[in-house]
Amino acid sequence: MIKNSIGRMIPGEVNGVKQIPFKGVAKYKPEGLKAAPPIRSCSDYPTDGNKVVSSLQEALKKCGLKDGMTISNHHHFRNGDLVMNQVFEIASEMGVKGLRWFPSAAFPCHKPVIDHINNGTIDWIEGSLNGPLGDFASGGGMRGTGVLRSHGGRWQAVQDGEVHIDIAVIAAPTADEFGNATGDRGPSACGLLGFGLVDTLYADKVIVVTDNLVPFPCLPWQIQGQNVDVVVVLDKVGEPEKIVSGTTKLTRSPDRLYIAELTAKFVKAADILHDGFSFQAGAGGTALAFAIYLKEMMKNAGIKARFIRGGSTKYLVEMLEEGLTDFILDGQTFDLEGVRSMRENFGHVNTSPFTSYNWHGKGNFATMLDVVVLGATEVDVNFNANVVTHSDGRMLHGIGGWQNCLFSKCTILPIPAFRDRIPIIVDKVTTVVGPGELIDVIVTERGIAINPLRKDLISATKNSKLPIRKIEEIKAEVDDLIGGPPTKPELTDEVVSIVKWVDGTVLDSIYKIKEEE
Amino acid sequence: MIKNSIGRMIPGEVNGVKQIPFKGVAKYKPEGLKAAPPIRSCSDYPTDGNKVVSSLQEALKKCGLKDGMTISNHHHFRNGDLVMNQVFEIASEMGVKGLRWFPSAAFPCHKPVIDHINNGTIDWIEGSLNGPLGDFASGGGMRGTGVLRSHGGRWQAVQDGEVHIDIAVIAAPTADEFGNATGDRGPSACGLLGFGLVDTLYADKVIVVTDNLVPFPCLPWQIQGQNVDVVVVLDKVGEPEKIVSGTTKLTRSPDRLYIAELTAKFVKAADILHDGFSFQAGAGGTALAFAIYLKEMMKNAGIKARFIRGGSTKYLVEMLEEGLTDFILDGQTFDLEGVRSMRENFGHVNTSPFTSYNWHGKGNFATMLDVVVLGATEVDVNFNANVVTHSDGRMLHGIGGWQNCLFSKCTILPIPAFRDRIPIIVDKVTTVVGPGELIDVIVTERGIAINPLRKDLISATKNSKLPIRKIEEIKAEVDDLIGGPPTKPELTDEVVSIVKWVDGTVLDSIYKIKEEE
Repeated sequence: MIKNSIGRMIPGEVNGVKQIPFKGVAKYKPEGLKAAPPIRSCSDYPTDGNKVVSSLQEALKKCGLKDGMTISNHHHFRNGDLVMNQVFEIASEMGVKGLRWFPSAAFPCHKPVIDHINNGTIDWIEGSLNGPLGDFASGGGMRGTGVLRSHGGRWQAVQDGEVHIDIAVIAAPTADEFGNATGDRGPSACGLLGFGLVDTLYADKVIVVTDNLVPFPCLPWQIQGQNVDVVVVLDKVGEPEKIVSGTTKLTRSPDRLYIAELTAKFVKAADILHDGFSFQAGAGGTALAFAIYLKEMMKNAGIKARFIRGGSTKYLVEMLEEGLTDFILDGQTFDLEGVRSMRENFGHVNTSPFTSYNWHGKGNFATMLDVVVLGATEVDVNFNANVVTHSDGRMLHGIGGWQNCLFSKCTILPIPAFRDRIPIIVDKVTTVVGPGELIDVIVTERGIAINPLRKDLISATKNSKLPIRKIEEIKAEVDDLIGGPPTKPELTDEVVSIVKWVDGTVLDSIYKIKEEE
Repeated sequence: MIKNSIGRMIPGEVNGVKQIPFKGVAKYKPEGLKAAPPIRSCSDYPTDGNKVVSSLQEALKKCGLKDGMTISNHHHFRNGDLVMNQVFEIASEMGVKGLRWFPSAAFPCHKPVIDHINNGTIDWIEGSLNGPLGDFASGGGMRGTGVLRSHGGRWQAVQDGEVHIDIAVIAAPTADEFGNATGDRGPSACGLLGFGLVDTLYADKVIVVTDNLVPFPCLPWQIQGQNVDVVVVLDKVGEPEKIVSGTTKLTRSPDRLYIAELTAKFVKAADILHDGFSFQAGAGGTALAFAIYLKEMMKNAGIKARFIRGGSTKYLVEMLEEGLTDFILDGQTFDLEGVRSMRENFGHVNTSPFTSYNWHGKGNFATMLDVVVLGATEVDVNFNANVVTHSDGRMLHGIGGWQNCLFSKCTILPIPAFRDRIPIIVDKVTTVVGPGELIDVIVTERGIAINPLRKDLISATKNSKLPIRKIEEIKAEVDDLIGGPPTKPELTDEVVSIVKWVDGTVLDSIYKIKEEE
């Protein structure tokens, strides 16, 4: 174990790969060349462009599925994916062992994968683990260490050759027989396929799986057939109604609504709200409520945004269609209105982690945002924040674009001061996912805390009459109310997962939960 | 010199790089990995996304311009480019020597480059040479050997690492300060920027030069800012009215009109014309006339194409807007109606040599086409064709997408039997640019010759009453009329350029012209 620049212990090697400890924000400079996929030849592909094979099993065989491979997929169907459980069922039937599953995120619908870990088909999952799979990994169930990456970090890892994908499986709501594919139309339309883009660019073999085969050319070609090896047609690839998960519903809690309103007021007071500004609000209920308050303020002030970054929802689509923004630059659609709008509106733009988040490119969109509003499970008095583990140490969430968004010009975390009688502001977060220097403002129902590094924000808002307080003060008040700081989670010293920073270095470790006696 | 599989002599090494002789169509299998550009970090780029510098000179300095580098650009402005002469003027003033210029094509407007070869700034040009630069190279004026590649071959060469680009200069009719760029709008709109796409993906440094800077984000982002290092704003980057060159005007010659009509009739007789079919016709006057005849046939028969591949012109745009095709898959706009349509019509799609032509991908569009109609400077009795040199041996044209298109299901060359009293059908073409096995039909005003390999076409058209004849018969008739076969060009044994095949192997050599005494 090595201590990194923020004092967290991290393993020197993970799954046989040497790790670089986190060196500080923007301190690590990558060297070398990007990953390079094999050169292919058209003489090995059908000249009529028809790459359709008769079954998923045939496709996997054609792509040479074998022991120890890395299999990847995107998560645009979120909890409605119908493909990956089938893939691992087939792999299991074929007797394949020791796979690494490399999804952009796994959801509760993928719970059957636990059986495939137990039966030896899969050794470990490297990707965001939401719900039951996270819980399983927290208990030490995987043969291999989890690696949590942001959306941008996943692109970076593939691009930089840290993760080599053998076979990418791309569920596609519409595709042609050549492999061109789009997410914005078809009976299972899920919006876009941006999380799978890097897979198609760098994987050795790419399988497109669709339930809506159209005559060539399928347009828009969010995924290009020139990167695709095989096409499979199934009855149904996903349940788009399930992309609307619990986290994408507007909050009804009076406390959270108050926090959302305070956040919008802060944005106004700090003079961030100007014509041509930009913002991103996550899909959590409070963030959605923030967007609604902001919208009212924009209408009242006659202000128009130049762009909003999504995760798109019907609330953002309304803003676009009412002329309150020129563009939605969208990384994933969170509801069916988002899907419709992406199909219909020129200003609703399909993006990818490359354009939005990749730290190892020549710039990205996240750093240009005027303000971003995100959630967190814990924050500490140094503004470090956690988004993957709960206070009990269990790993239950993925990072998403959260780390990448921290580079905005103003990052605000609107969070309740406590949840289920557990204080959210702590002395030291269980897991550092965001370094404090990048987190500018914490908004709670008990006041707003501004990071002391942001003297500009402190000065801009000092006459605002907003309840601006020191973070230590808010913490003390909450601890007092609850009867002291929260009890520390019961953890072993066995690392079940690491948390990567956006540059591929290791920020923190996640430990196995102590079994209850 | 080595003899390749079609008996042509080619140099074993060109510009210090070992060459692979042509091995036959689809016979050479590439090995190894694609080229890999350096990994970059956002920490080296402005977080506000503003990459604008004050001058082209500053941009070139910032990108580290120095002796021996390879500088590339696209040719979407064709004869109206205003940027590259400035680039080499600056390089010359900076005292830089020994550059390789790697354009996707050079035009008569680039004649000043000859001075920069003479003064040592540029050693040689590697790219299509049209007009005066071709003439100059044919006379042995370059210090280095020319390399002629098809559009697909240029993508292949960069992708496969045969050509490493140090600095790419992308003239962009509209761009934002981050480097997102599009060709479809702005005062200098030229349609698309697809020929420059590979440059932005693989070059070490990329400069976007625009005369129309818009607020971020510039959409559509045909070129993505995440691949761009520096942005420069100039008064004017190109003269779009000059993209309409002489070759893109409809023929008025009665002979050529007759050839075009015969070609369309052949397509109908061969049963290629069916609902959902596809075609590509080059930008030459005869090819355009063919498209017009075809259009009438389609209307009369109630037939709709699924897609037409462009070079787009107003004639193709009319077909799209009249509902005679679902899509134009466009590689370059040849007139301003093409530009407008690409901006306005969902069905007018921006493509690149990657999607359309690259032989070293997992398929491409060219092989899927039902029929393609192209020009040629010479054809021989074995159906080998030439498109780069004239009968006098002078290299005056580029290959364009010509070689790539030969892979269509039916390739037709409608050509006059003679030009300026020089027969076009010869015993042996001066330069082999297209192997005979890929050329299916020759249409002249003296009859139609079908390649004996295409028994299916011979059989389909045998009762058509079309003037189908043996190629040797047409040749004999023309030679007889002219008074014998043409005189052979006066050439030295010095190679001034090589002709690459789509897979990077060498198909033929082009020799220095003998000086007139």
